[in-house]
Amino acid sequence: MNSMADDHVPLTIIIFLLCIWTFPIQSTHSATINVWPKPRTFTWSQPTAHLLSPNFTITSPTHLYLSPAVHRYLRLIISEHYRPLVSPSSVDLNTSAPPLHTLSITISDLTAQLHHGVDETYSLTVPSNGGSANITAKTVWGAMRGLETFSQLVWGNPSSVAVGLYVWDSPLYAHRGLMLDTSRNYYGVEDILRTIKAMSENKMNVFHWHITDSHSFPLVVPSEPQLAAKGSYGSNMQYSPAEVAQIVKFGFEHGVRVLPEIDSPGHTGSWAEAYPDIVTCANMFWWPAGTQWEKRLASEPGTGHLNPLKPKTYQVLKNVIRDVTNLFPEPFYHSGADEIIPECWKSDETIQAFLKDNGTLSEVLEIFINSTLPYILSLNRTVVYWEDVLLDDNIHVTTSTLPKENTILQTWNNGHSNTKRIVSSGYRAIVSSSDFYYLDCGHGDFVGNDSQYDNQTGSGQRDGGSWCGPFKTWQTIYNYEIDYGLTEEEAKLVMGGEVALWSEQADPTVLDSRVWPRASAMAESLWSGNRDEKGAKRFAEATDRLNEWRNRMVKRGTAAEPIQPLWCVRNPGMCNTLNSS
Amino acid sequence: MNSMADDHVPLTIIIFLLCIWTFPIQSTHSATINVWPKPRTFTWSQPTAHLLSPNFTITSPTHLYLSPAVHRYLRLIISEHYRPLVSPSSVDLNTSAPPLHTLSITISDLTAQLHHGVDETYSLTVPSNGGSANITAKTVWGAMRGLETFSQLVWGNPSSVAVGLYVWDSPLYAHRGLMLDTSRNYYGVEDILRTIKAMSENKMNVFHWHITDSHSFPLVVPSEPQLAAKGSYGSNMQYSPAEVAQIVKFGFEHGVRVLPEIDSPGHTGSWAEAYPDIVTCANMFWWPAGTQWEKRLASEPGTGHLNPLKPKTYQVLKNVIRDVTNLFPEPFYHSGADEIIPECWKSDETIQAFLKDNGTLSEVLEIFINSTLPYILSLNRTVVYWEDVLLDDNIHVTTSTLPKENTILQTWNNGHSNTKRIVSSGYRAIVSSSDFYYLDCGHGDFVGNDSQYDNQTGSGQRDGGSWCGPFKTWQTIYNYEIDYGLTEEEAKLVMGGEVALWSEQADPTVLDSRVWPRASAMAESLWSGNRDEKGAKRFAEATDRLNEWRNRMVKRGTAAEPIQPLWCVRNPGMCNTLNSS
Repeated sequence: MNSMADDHVPLTIIIFLLCIWTFPIQSTHSATINVWPKPRTFTWSQPTAHLLSPNFTITSPTHLYLSPAVHRYLRLIISEHYRPLVSPSSVDLNTSAPPLHTLSITISDLTAQLHHGVDETYSLTVPSNGGSANITAKTVWGAMRGLETFSQLVWGNPSSVAVGLYVWDSPLYAHRGLMLDTSRNYYGVEDILRTIKAMSENKMNVFHWHITDSHSFPLVVPSEPQLAAKGSYGSNMQYSPAEVAQIVKFGFEHGVRVLPEIDSPGHTGSWAEAYPDIVTCANMFWWPAGTQWEKRLASEPGTGHLNPLKPKTYQVLKNVIRDVTNLFPEPFYHSGADEIIPECWKSDETIQAFLKDNGTLSEVLEIFINSTLPYILSLNRTVVYWEDVLLDDNIHVTTSTLPKENTILQTWNNGHSNTKRIVSSGYRAIVSSSDFYYLDCGHGDFVGNDSQYDNQTGSGQRDGGSWCGPFKTWQTIYNYEIDYGLTEEEAKLVMGGEVALWSEQADPTVLDSRVWPRASAMAESLWSGNRDEKGAKRFAEATDRLNEWRNRMVKRGTAAEPIQPLWCVRNPGMCNTLNSS
Repeated sequence: MNSMADDHVPLTIIIFLLCIWTFPIQSTHSATINVWPKPRTFTWSQPTAHLLSPNFTITSPTHLYLSPAVHRYLRLIISEHYRPLVSPSSVDLNTSAPPLHTLSITISDLTAQLHHGVDETYSLTVPSNGGSANITAKTVWGAMRGLETFSQLVWGNPSSVAVGLYVWDSPLYAHRGLMLDTSRNYYGVEDILRTIKAMSENKMNVFHWHITDSHSFPLVVPSEPQLAAKGSYGSNMQYSPAEVAQIVKFGFEHGVRVLPEIDSPGHTGSWAEAYPDIVTCANMFWWPAGTQWEKRLASEPGTGHLNPLKPKTYQVLKNVIRDVTNLFPEPFYHSGADEIIPECWKSDETIQAFLKDNGTLSEVLEIFINSTLPYILSLNRTVVYWEDVLLDDNIHVTTSTLPKENTILQTWNNGHSNTKRIVSSGYRAIVSSSDFYYLDCGHGDFVGNDSQYDNQTGSGQRDGGSWCGPFKTWQTIYNYEIDYGLTEEEAKLVMGGEVALWSEQADPTVLDSRVWPRASAMAESLWSGNRDEKGAKRFAEATDRLNEWRNRMVKRGTAAEPIQPLWCVRNPGMCNTLNSS
């Protein structure tokens, strides 16, 4: 759902903008100050900077989550002293003008919850007359976005701040997420917090936590403690309820929802360590020697599906669901439901008997959904599933099983085609196309004993062995239009997107560099788009800005990867091509 | 040149080995202890471990470089307490046996220098009778390899050490290198030291330092200080003579040669900041709009070639060469000579005049080589060039210009084909095939404004835009046979190989994870090969061992990337494929 549908631009702002538009201004999108993601409107008619007062302060209403954010930004703004890679040379730095003393925050609705679609609009004025700067927002979440923007307007030592500017800003898409898989490899709490912090700096708002999978079950579920005790990688590789609470709270303080995913009924091999009787095909070799792909038990090593025909499955699973909804206040609950592999269920005797009685595997899945979805809904949750539950070729349920008002589908296959299948069926969609938004692609395959890599000519390397190769460059991500090919009505059902890091070949050592700044590319594209005022793709202009932003992220503690030689940053335009391939 | 030609296995060792071979032993390559790279022979008939004495010590002859290495390994061995991902369960840990107290090192030639082809052979015995362990080596460099092997035989807390074993080890190839480009992006001294340390742990022995290029000139050359003063990225992004000396010394202490490359006459745009008059096409736009690729001034942004027709070029360059040979005692000097781009030289008036007089660009290059090569040789250096100097289609010199005894060619194009062209011409070759050994490939292109990334279907992504894509997986690197397709005589001219990290999209934030453990794959392949005792490729067995080794590297401070989920490591064989594609 495009959040713009809910935007209400105050009349005073409209009048202000009309006034500006009647006067000649240098540019409504000055390139001399980099803000990432680029605000929707950024008006700075005479690029000027003043000093930031050493006694600079921020005033704001007291709020459980906003107040810590204000405190954090105040510290950052005063102490960051960011040194730009390219100094903003066309800015008139007036050091004799009175320094900026105050940023005042005004919120009209302090009660708005951090839910999908909450108003994140803010306006920011930084006057050049010595008065205080102002952030006006409907919600504290919008104010947090404004604080981030303001922090990026400050640089240097002593600190300078851009003045005489006006920003009105609001996201194009309400759902701007990152999915992290903490099952295949474990990430420490500090890694997750660092990631949420970086998301916030990029105005992203959903940390989709793919907590469990076949490889490990790191979440300590109070009423089912054996799942982590036996299914995690070890007592030092678990997330305790207290740690989850810490992450959730940290998310709120950063305007980032923490959306839990307990993948089921597939991707549950790790559950078998505690409950072998509710998991089919657990701990079996994933793809039997000498068989066709259709005979695999899993699409990658790590087998196991929950058995929908065993009552005990639901005893355990409902305990998990209930505890997870207690641990995560987020109104969405992600239930997975991707990649049901026929042979895994067919390896089980009870399911064999069901099939013998003319049952189908789709019916088995339907039993599972019908036994869990109403329960999740009863806990006041909207359910997110991977698209497979509806779109898988072999095993899927019908739309009648999935209430449109309470079910959201996350797409990952076939690019726009599946997005369209979802929204044209009337479901809301979260876009994570593996062709564009999968951050793990292009690293080859992780499977061992693979002779495809034993060749002595480069031509034998083909696509490098990554099922979703090539590597998704930041440009690939930036340029993707998640509503491409949709009707206007269909496009309204696209809630936003998520980049995803599956962790077969990732863990804390590479987390930052594999996520950033590529996630930043999606963050801007979903916040303010990927086109300039004239409607042309702005990837060339974004390159320079992203270089600068990546550098700032590194200085702030996120080890984002570089996208160009420093020489390119210092020589804007010189590293472009004018002869595109 | 294959170092095996120079190997002399002592008669006592041969007799020892013969004795072992007449008795039934469990395995000459026990899988229960991981050593990376795998030694050539590893005999451990009854896998047993004893405790390491808390007073464990190493005795060795005093030596400028060995002594610090011994001190370092002693500290590591006592304090590492490495906890394996998979405990060596089939090892009989006998805690009541007398702990190992001493490792004694015996060197027969303390004077051997760390030069190409120096004997790195060592033997290591760790007795099970309570006596001291012994490393016997001809040179201190061999002893350092033995120390590394020994350190990998120690694990746990309290420390256990494998006993009752015998290792005889020697590299297949004498040149096992890593090339790092510090011009496109800068790396701090600590990054370089950390890299050399990790190389040493992988028994790699050549740090090929691509110091300068068109983007920046970070090396402070005492007699030409303006080159770095004006051509570096800044005073905090330079390498002072003292820092170079520190790096060189650190290299010696780790058995790693530091081989400097001053790329010329191409890739010298940064020289123009100090000496614009000796550089052609400097600071020009790299590929003029609307022209064919043949009209480019550089193959990537960052233009500039030294002008071979200007006498001043040689005044400056000879100062640089002389100072560099003073800074770097290494007997090899890498002079670059890759990618001479016709239009860059043709943009210069003096060269235009030369061409008008029926000169050719190849003659211009020949003038350059003839004006520099003899000077480099006079400084007692062997010259390394990239293959282009001989093999480039357009601009190259003849073999008569390049004395075979003093010239080495490093290959990077066309895989085996160019290796064969080099060695069949009688030159020694260092293999850095971009199809296999380029660590930067598969990350897309860094050039800005590239519309190839603006497409809305995955199929439009083709190869991902990396000129040398796909990403080179560790398996691709591991399986490459650098002497493939050569005659026995030709193969003797292959000195070894180098993985290479070009830094368009790399800097310290990604250094470790982009290099390791993929460089480890080459390190083993060039040290002891990529085949098992039966001659079969051992990439499946290597997977488990590399997982463990990568983990140990991380614990030692190198942020190597993971290659599999931890689940795979814990469940050996379960993540293999038995149905190769």
